[in-house]
Amino acid sequence: MKVSKFGGTSVASAEQFKKVAQIIKDDPERKVVIVSAPGKRFSGDTKTTDLLIEFGEKILRNENVENELLEIINRYDNIATELGINNGVIAEITANLHALRELDRSNNQRVMDRIKASGEDNNAELFAAYMNHLEIEASYVNPQEAGIVVSDEPGNAQVLPETFENLKKLKLRSGVLIIPGFFGYSPDGELVTFSRGGSDITGSIVAAGVGATLYENFTDVDSVFSANPAVVENPRAIEELTYKEMRELSYAGFSVFHDEALIPAFRAEIPVCIKNTNNPSARGTFVVLERNYEKNPIVGIASDSGFCSIHVSKYLMNREVGFGRRLLQILEDEGLSYEHMPSGIDETSVILRERQFNNNDTETRVMERIRSELQVDSVTIKRNQAMIMVVGEGMTHQVGISAKATAAFARADVNIEMINQGSSEVSMMFAVQENDAAEAVRSLYKEYYGENVETDGLIQEVLEIK
Amino acid sequence: MKVSKFGGTSVASAEQFKKVAQIIKDDPERKVVIVSAPGKRFSGDTKTTDLLIEFGEKILRNENVENELLEIINRYDNIATELGINNGVIAEITANLHALRELDRSNNQRVMDRIKASGEDNNAELFAAYMNHLEIEASYVNPQEAGIVVSDEPGNAQVLPETFENLKKLKLRSGVLIIPGFFGYSPDGELVTFSRGGSDITGSIVAAGVGATLYENFTDVDSVFSANPAVVENPRAIEELTYKEMRELSYAGFSVFHDEALIPAFRAEIPVCIKNTNNPSARGTFVVLERNYEKNPIVGIASDSGFCSIHVSKYLMNREVGFGRRLLQILEDEGLSYEHMPSGIDETSVILRERQFNNNDTETRVMERIRSELQVDSVTIKRNQAMIMVVGEGMTHQVGISAKATAAFARADVNIEMINQGSSEVSMMFAVQENDAAEAVRSLYKEYYGENVETDGLIQEVLEIK
Repeated sequence: MKVSKFGGTSVASAEQFKKVAQIIKDDPERKVVIVSAPGKRFSGDTKTTDLLIEFGEKILRNENVENELLEIINRYDNIATELGINNGVIAEITANLHALRELDRSNNQRVMDRIKASGEDNNAELFAAYMNHLEIEASYVNPQEAGIVVSDEPGNAQVLPETFENLKKLKLRSGVLIIPGFFGYSPDGELVTFSRGGSDITGSIVAAGVGATLYENFTDVDSVFSANPAVVENPRAIEELTYKEMRELSYAGFSVFHDEALIPAFRAEIPVCIKNTNNPSARGTFVVLERNYEKNPIVGIASDSGFCSIHVSKYLMNREVGFGRRLLQILEDEGLSYEHMPSGIDETSVILRERQFNNNDTETRVMERIRSELQVDSVTIKRNQAMIMVVGEGMTHQVGISAKATAAFARADVNIEMINQGSSEVSMMFAVQENDAAEAVRSLYKEYYGENVETDGLIQEVLEIK
Repeated sequence: MKVSKFGGTSVASAEQFKKVAQIIKDDPERKVVIVSAPGKRFSGDTKTTDLLIEFGEKILRNENVENELLEIINRYDNIATELGINNGVIAEITANLHALRELDRSNNQRVMDRIKASGEDNNAELFAAYMNHLEIEASYVNPQEAGIVVSDEPGNAQVLPETFENLKKLKLRSGVLIIPGFFGYSPDGELVTFSRGGSDITGSIVAAGVGATLYENFTDVDSVFSANPAVVENPRAIEELTYKEMRELSYAGFSVFHDEALIPAFRAEIPVCIKNTNNPSARGTFVVLERNYEKNPIVGIASDSGFCSIHVSKYLMNREVGFGRRLLQILEDEGLSYEHMPSGIDETSVILRERQFNNNDTETRVMERIRSELQVDSVTIKRNQAMIMVVGEGMTHQVGISAKATAAFARADVNIEMINQGSSEVSMMFAVQENDAAEAVRSLYKEYYGENVETDGLIQEVLEIK
């Protein structure tokens, strides 16, 4: 049994609905389908979820929402009309949407969760109606009926353990089950949404619950690439990568996946496949527990910007018991989370996401607290840093892998501000100035994948001389 | 005004006394001399301080100490006789040593401090007598008279701030002042010693107090070397290095200096010179605040063994606020100090000195606490690690420096377990298996200093291709 999740662009139009139906028909193992809200049909289009958010905000401000309502209904109506569905589903969706105007408004977050979730919910209803229209046995299954029980944190629901037991009963049902993504129900029966992109989470939870042989995540790309195509021309497709590698790539700006979404599938050891709705015969990218590392020690090169580093120096810091712990305590007190804390003998740096300092007061206060409470010799902050990650599980134990990486930086004439290697068995991490990042990624890509890189032999020669 | 400290081997015999006297005569700026206890005269000889420790321990056990007393007196007497000094100083030293048997024994540490300190104290008296014998104006100055006031921590005295003000009056005195190293007096007038090797500390304090133009530290080597001569054949001498560089080298096993000793001189910005009593015309090694980094970006390569690393992995660790702080708190609770804490996305390592785990219970308890309190997916410990430090202030901002280092490891076929670069502006740090350390140091030395290293051009070529 496969669980197949279709993202927003995959279910944005009648044409896309047809492709999805065909994909389901092509493989009888595809028994559970998770549906997103209709996404963009073309560049510049508005996602249904964004229409719904605007609609919800206007309702909360008691403004007129006739236009928004009409626009949203139209999204579904256009699909239904084009597909020739006339079994009453549009009347039902229209009623659902009108009812949203009458919600109890004592809790704004609750209202927004109900409104946002309707995007997926109505689309699942519509898709089930289409399947029936095609005379395929299929039924809409509400997450409450499916048994998806979550914590009562509007917009950030966490799955509760009983869910996985509940979901098992889905295996007994016949036909294709169509479940809307993005939300569950609290133990008190309140609808609560996951964080944004949460249809991936629903898919992963359901795949774990039914013990799927595969969790298919249909998007609009053939595969995950080994580097950002906006930086590297025609980067290689990744055929297979591990959960850990996926997580490291997601961290460093690969946005194919809502990376937290992978946890339930990972814990249940369900393989995940990322496939293209528009080209379903393409093999896609598999996320697995283990892979053959020898063939491709390096799976991808990613970079993300928006980091800063606080550098603290104090003579004999090294002898001071508790220094590092107290430094982290100050950050924690100030509500800041840190990414890394590399240290020298009498020096320590802390790397943070820069956006946490958008409030200038925080920065000033943190710097002042470090200065006075830790009695440091100096504390400085360096802005506009980028992190580059070379990702590949097991690679850190191969002699020469870091020599190749550092040579690539040197060749690109990029100064490495920081290297963090060996703490992770999955990646090497380099900090550089933001405006050097693209050049460095291209040079690394060339080093590890370039077929005609004229310098590769040289490095080889260097490594062979012992 | 220069402050000149002479280490144990420099003042171990009549022959050495002559050299020291000549050194002082050669430069009228050498107005303050710090004297150690007589050290080894030949390989296999026993240092006076070690004789005194045995003597002290026997006294505390109420054992007979006649032989030890005689042996200690002989050390001074032999010097005096050979130098032809007969102005009563040996009678005085003999009386001093006999008096040590009659000390109040209510506090063992106090007794040991008094006995150990006599090694330097009597030698300073003897050297002052010798200077007078040579008709050079010189006087013995007791640390109490000099104004060296310290905390009352036997064997680990810390200098108190009033000392520096007190010492200023020494500048008004004429002739050469001979001060015994290694001890001061508490505000209550009790003699207290510094930690072992503390004559360096006395020298540094006095240099800071009198505002010396130079603090000369006379030893038995021409200079500090850029690598351990036991590992690298004929390593280069270091002409000049900064305080920070000296500290990093000391950390990683360069034992020329008692590195805490440098603090007072460093804070007062007094340059330090390490010179050879047996070859005073050699330029020596200067420890300075700043140097010309372009000439020698890398000042030295050091390694130290006896480290271990605890590796912790937990899926989504990165999202968990306070994880790193709580990990360090556990170590602190257990009385462990850590060296570094490099981290990946979902993984963190902590590097510690292995000797802290000699008690197996501590290791078991720490691992168990990490497992249960932090709910980690896995925690493992890796033993027998060595740290290799490539030291050179400012070097981390030069493109290609790390490429050279990593290529050197690859060439030596040594796997780098961890790289920590950029957190310190003074060094790059590499963790390797202990038994790979020597080979790696040799390869790094060849890379940075080797005149006839056949691969240097290759690396150069690699770096030049952009």
